[in-house]
Amino acid sequence: MKNRIITISREFGSGGRTIGKMVAQELGIPCYDSELLEKIAKESGFDERYIQEAGEYAPGGFLSSAFSHHPSGPNNADYLWNIQFRIITQLAEKGPCVIVGRCADYILRDKADCLRVFIHADMDFRAERIVKVYGESQQSPQQRLKDKDKRRAAYHRFYTDMKWGHAQNYDITLNSGSLGIDKCVQIIKSLY
Amino acid sequence: MKNRIITISREFGSGGRTIGKMVAQELGIPCYDSELLEKIAKESGFDERYIQEAGEYAPGGFLSSAFSHHPSGPNNADYLWNIQFRIITQLAEKGPCVIVGRCADYILRDKADCLRVFIHADMDFRAERIVKVYGESQQSPQQRLKDKDKRRAAYHRFYTDMKWGHAQNYDITLNSGSLGIDKCVQIIKSLY
Repeated sequence: MKNRIITISREFGSGGRTIGKMVAQELGIPCYDSELLEKIAKESGFDERYIQEAGEYAPGGFLSSAFSHHPSGPNNADYLWNIQFRIITQLAEKGPCVIVGRCADYILRDKADCLRVFIHADMDFRAERIVKVYGESQQSPQQRLKDKDKRRAAYHRFYTDMKWGHAQNYDITLNSGSLGIDKCVQIIKSLY
Repeated sequence: MKNRIITISREFGSGGRTIGKMVAQELGIPCYDSELLEKIAKESGFDERYIQEAGEYAPGGFLSSAFSHHPSGPNNADYLWNIQFRIITQLAEKGPCVIVGRCADYILRDKADCLRVFIHADMDFRAERIVKVYGESQQSPQQRLKDKDKRRAAYHRFYTDMKWGHAQNYDITLNSGSLGIDKCVQIIKSLY
């Protein structure tokens, strides 16, 4: 039996993570997201919260002082990337699963049995959703979204040289705002 | 009853036009493509073949001598665009339909009841397909694809200021090469 992997890249607040979990649950296969972070953290010695916050950002000077108990060096982000690359490859070899974020789409790009999904939505939908899911913050929701999008795109581009959100990189892209989260889950499920 | 419109933008050779026709047939609604060209031709006085060849290209000097029986002027492409804009708007108001190409996605962008689809596929799939559908030509299939993609993207960008193939411009984008044409038809139908 061939492994069947679904990778989900997503704009912040688009519900991509929720969609990934729902798809995995309905298909009865694991979904790696925070679980993946824990694995990376354990293997790298980096603090899990640091990985969560910095792990999707393009490498820069601000990273060098943020890790927890690993000797300092110029290549923290690259070191993390290598571990992430290995873990994602291993998970995909282990069996069918959904992997959310972390450039899994790129890492598994040559796997024939991998469905690459991108979830996005317009600003209003996402702004309302992040306040509901993550609560208010000092920054406006719009500013939080712009900031996060920019960082994810830069991270993605740095490591993959692919254009973030470019249809050609994916088997399917879905607007969760206009189609609705349940419909997105149904469509992805139907492609499994 | 609200109108329900499906617009399909597509890379050359991806089967987007075929998918549009199949969706329309299965839903029992009209599909505008060559029919649309005829309407534009009739109204503009431009030759139909000229519209077909030049109508998706960004305006340039080469346009000024190519029309059939309309007084020469610097704004042929803009003139054509205005007619196209009006015809597509009218068709969408008339009733449910599928519209392939012609920036209909942009022209109808503010219509709530419009599903915007983009179809693409990788180079190998498209190269094989254009030879099968359109036959051989002096240029290699790869060169024909590159040339056509570039022109469509430039035309789209000139009139819409939207990025061609950018997921965020569409409700759904589908890779017809990896998913298969029948599956694309099914998914679009399920969203109607």
